[in-house]
Amino acid sequence: MERDAIRVTVWNEFRHEKVDEAVRKIYPDGMHEVIAAQLRAQKDLQVRTATLDEHEHGLTENALAETDVLTWWGHMAHEEVRDEIVDRIQARVLEGMGLIVLHSGHVSKIFQRMMGTTCYLRWREAAEKERVWVVKPSHPIAAGIGPYIELPNQEMYGEHFDIPDPDDLIFVSWFEGGEVFRSGCAWARGLGRIFYFSPGHETYPIYHNPDVLTVITNAVRWAGAAANTAVLPFQAAETEPLEKLSPKSLQ
Amino acid sequence: MERDAIRVTVWNEFRHEKVDEAVRKIYPDGMHEVIAAQLRAQKDLQVRTATLDEHEHGLTENALAETDVLTWWGHMAHEEVRDEIVDRIQARVLEGMGLIVLHSGHVSKIFQRMMGTTCYLRWREAAEKERVWVVKPSHPIAAGIGPYIELPNQEMYGEHFDIPDPDDLIFVSWFEGGEVFRSGCAWARGLGRIFYFSPGHETYPIYHNPDVLTVITNAVRWAGAAANTAVLPFQAAETEPLEKLSPKSLQ
Amino acid sequence: MERDAIRVTVWNEFRHEKVDEAVRKIYPDGMHEVIAAQLRAQKDLQVRTATLDEHEHGLTENALAETDVLTWWGHMAHEEVRDEIVDRIQARVLEGMGLIVLHSGHVSKIFQRMMGTTCYLRWREAAEKERVWVVKPSHPIAAGIGPYIELPNQEMYGEHFDIPDPDDLIFVSWFEGGEVFRSGCAWARGLGRIFYFSPGHETYPIYHNPDVLTVITNAVRWAGAAANTAVLPFQAAETEPLEKLSPKSLQ
Amino acid sequence: MERDAIRVTVWNEFRHEKVDEAVRKIYPDGMHEVIAAQLRAQKDLQVRTATLDEHEHGLTENALAETDVLTWWGHMAHEEVRDEIVDRIQARVLEGMGLIVLHSGHVSKIFQRMMGTTCYLRWREAAEKERVWVVKPSHPIAAGIGPYIELPNQEMYGEHFDIPDPDDLIFVSWFEGGEVFRSGCAWARGLGRIFYFSPGHETYPIYHNPDVLTVITNAVRWAGAAANTAVLPFQAAETEPLEKLSPKSLQ
Repeated sequence: MERDAIRVTVWNEFRHEKVDEAVRKIYPDGMHEVIAAQLRAQKDLQVRTATLDEHEHGLTENALAETDVLTWWGHMAHEEVRDEIVDRIQARVLEGMGLIVLHSGHVSKIFQRMMGTTCYLRWREAAEKERVWVVKPSHPIAAGIGPYIELPNQEMYGEHFDIPDPDDLIFVSWFEGGEVFRSGCAWARGLGRIFYFSPGHETYPIYHNPDVLTVITNAVRWAGAAANTAVLPFQAAETEPLEKLSPKSLQ
Repeated sequence: MERDAIRVTVWNEFRHEKVDEAVRKIYPDGMHEVIAAQLRAQKDLQVRTATLDEHEHGLTENALAETDVLTWWGHMAHEEVRDEIVDRIQARVLEGMGLIVLHSGHVSKIFQRMMGTTCYLRWREAAEKERVWVVKPSHPIAAGIGPYIELPNQEMYGEHFDIPDPDDLIFVSWFEGGEVFRSGCAWARGLGRIFYFSPGHETYPIYHNPDVLTVITNAVRWAGAAANTAVLPFQAAETEPLEKLSPKSLQ
Repeated sequence: MERDAIRVTVWNEFRHEKVDEAVRKIYPDGMHEVIAAQLRAQKDLQVRTATLDEHEHGLTENALAETDVLTWWGHMAHEEVRDEIVDRIQARVLEGMGLIVLHSGHVSKIFQRMMGTTCYLRWREAAEKERVWVVKPSHPIAAGIGPYIELPNQEMYGEHFDIPDPDDLIFVSWFEGGEVFRSGCAWARGLGRIFYFSPGHETYPIYHNPDVLTVITNAVRWAGAAANTAVLPFQAAETEPLEKLSPKSLQ
Repeated sequence: MERDAIRVTVWNEFRHEKVDEAVRKIYPDGMHEVIAAQLRAQKDLQVRTATLDEHEHGLTENALAETDVLTWWGHMAHEEVRDEIVDRIQARVLEGMGLIVLHSGHVSKIFQRMMGTTCYLRWREAAEKERVWVVKPSHPIAAGIGPYIELPNQEMYGEHFDIPDPDDLIFVSWFEGGEVFRSGCAWARGLGRIFYFSPGHETYPIYHNPDVLTVITNAVRWAGAAANTAVLPFQAAETEPLEKLSPKSLQ
């Protein structure tokens, strides 16, 4: 059980914080720094950050090779993420890197790529109340969370949410305006684990909410737990028989 | 229950049959014609075929718009399938078209696109025995099939198979050489339904096997059943609240 | 496709209607008669009813043997259902009979038996609004239903709902009082298919709602589709090897 | 992450070892002692054993209250397990205790109770080869295991295996005699986690195999991870609205 620390890269588009005063007030150093601060407080996690405008979006081959779990927040600049970086992230997820996709990352290139669907949803920005209910309390991502998390002001994300059925549906949200949403969903893809968590609109202080931070921390540990597997990265492999085959007659 | 016929397009790469005498002996008119003949014998199905070398691979906008279920067999020319046609097929699946992917279609562009994974697997061509076991007998795709289907000579496809967990795992195969394989897997994606079925190597008369044909026929009906839904194709939709929102104070 | 009609038994506890004037006003002949009338209007269904106070609750060996799908509504008299009848229903489900459990049937003996969990939930009777959202629109049980069904007055059933993860989660409900609920859930058990649908409190005219009736009709067809399988009922079976075993040395 | 040790109770029927010389040679102190020795070597686990012939089968209220994960091996005396003890175990699983069911425990009262199905399967005792393939390599229960585990002599357990679809299918076995089997299956039930693992016939030294012991150790940690949840044990709970309800008109 003395395992190495889980190496986390907290990725943020980091644009709203530069152009929108209201967002900067909530996240003066960018929302990645608030998320990273929470994770840095955990002894078993080793944390770095990366943002869109860095060289190769801060996600070089080396950087990803040394990342066990990548968290992703993007919104206004999804299209600026370069396709070859998306290819690289996908390959690393399939090799075992965890991927935590937050809020508006639902239509990021990487999430759509991993899902195979549009990931479209209904939405509305009206500062309304969201209540995030636990529906799979046995899941470690829900550890320490009560029956629900209440967020007084949130952007509404509603069904139908065009995703593959999750392997585990952990949270379902209620919205004041009348909608529901599958707000916490987990999947395995290749050797990697993916978790989508919808709370997080940039104009409300969602990532200052302790329960939201607990869920993200739990998710990082859950996704990082998959990075130890002994199975090699996938390849289409021609393989010798393990048993003696009978003589054939195919004439 | 008086519904319109399910409109099926049987797609085949149709190359092996032109260049390989052994394959032509088994499928003189192409394997699509053998599959189509089986489906044409069903009163509730309306069947056409399409192949790679036709205009737009036989999959024009119109052709796809009039297809409820598309079956797919490809192998040596996956790379020749044009990306814009793959985009088009993906969009139609998400709108509700069924997709039945056969055998070596596991690494077709469209299947990898829908899955988000490599879909790689172990393989071996040694004419060995495969026994396809039913593991979800309540599923309509298994209707009429006994405990297993035995195929005396097959290409081996073995685990690990790099796919998302299926919504329904219906068949698991045993191979003489010592491997197992999740050989019949069903998923929903968007409004569409996808079924992968691994039997079908071109050098063995797999698509002349009555049980294999029954499974394909069942799968077409199962996937076609989803094409009637009243929900519109997906769009990212900003939406008015259904309930009256409380006054907010976000200053 | 010319299959025999699906034989449905609509089961009702039929007690509230006898003792509660408000319920009798909504369902003068019992709610089973309203559900049965809907199903009798379908050409492919053959319908009978059964109630708690009949001999063997109307569920004799013969009656169940001739039932492809059983719908179940109970509430105030769950404990009066005899255990040997519950055993009999369970055995028939495992043999392939469909089971549609409605509303307060969530704590019926048969549903708890099939699930292995308490099936407990939060509840409140306050005539509040429920909005039943479609979350798996590709599923045939959702056919013909729009984005949601709105029920102006319903008993609240809320999470956490102590059930096994459904094979398919088709509906999730929003409640005016702030809760969400997995209101339409499908499972396979043995050769049979089970669907739970929560709308249906006896003091509101829920089973007069056309969308609710459509869902029940769809569910009966979906569950009835499993009744044709060729696999025999289960038995623990010692079995001869299908392949020649190698000589062993276990000394 | 400084969490308390996971408290494990290794339960064994402990009858074969007393009456069958061949079994005693392999497991002189009972197979529970071999499993317990492996688990005792882990710093994060605290281990005790219990057997059928102890008072209350060694599973008193107190003993279970202090158990985070229970492992179960039984075969010849399933019927002697008292029903009130089965009730007690079920209640503890739903409260969050993990349950690891081994081999012939597939028809134990507690496993059938949790599953709701017969759990029947095909079987044959012929000392044949089993190869346990990993099909979900991202799952922590597969950590440290290569593509497969090979067991030279095993009892055959084959499909169809009458269980609910697992939440996670982790292992699928190949048998020399021609069958396949879903040999490693995980479910959540209530707040608890259940893992079934089929290797383990008493007349072969299966629990001396290092890979088999690794899987059991992984499974104990995985199931124990669920025991920390903050959600209270389930109860059917009438509950006040979280939102103000609108005035109703139900006249």
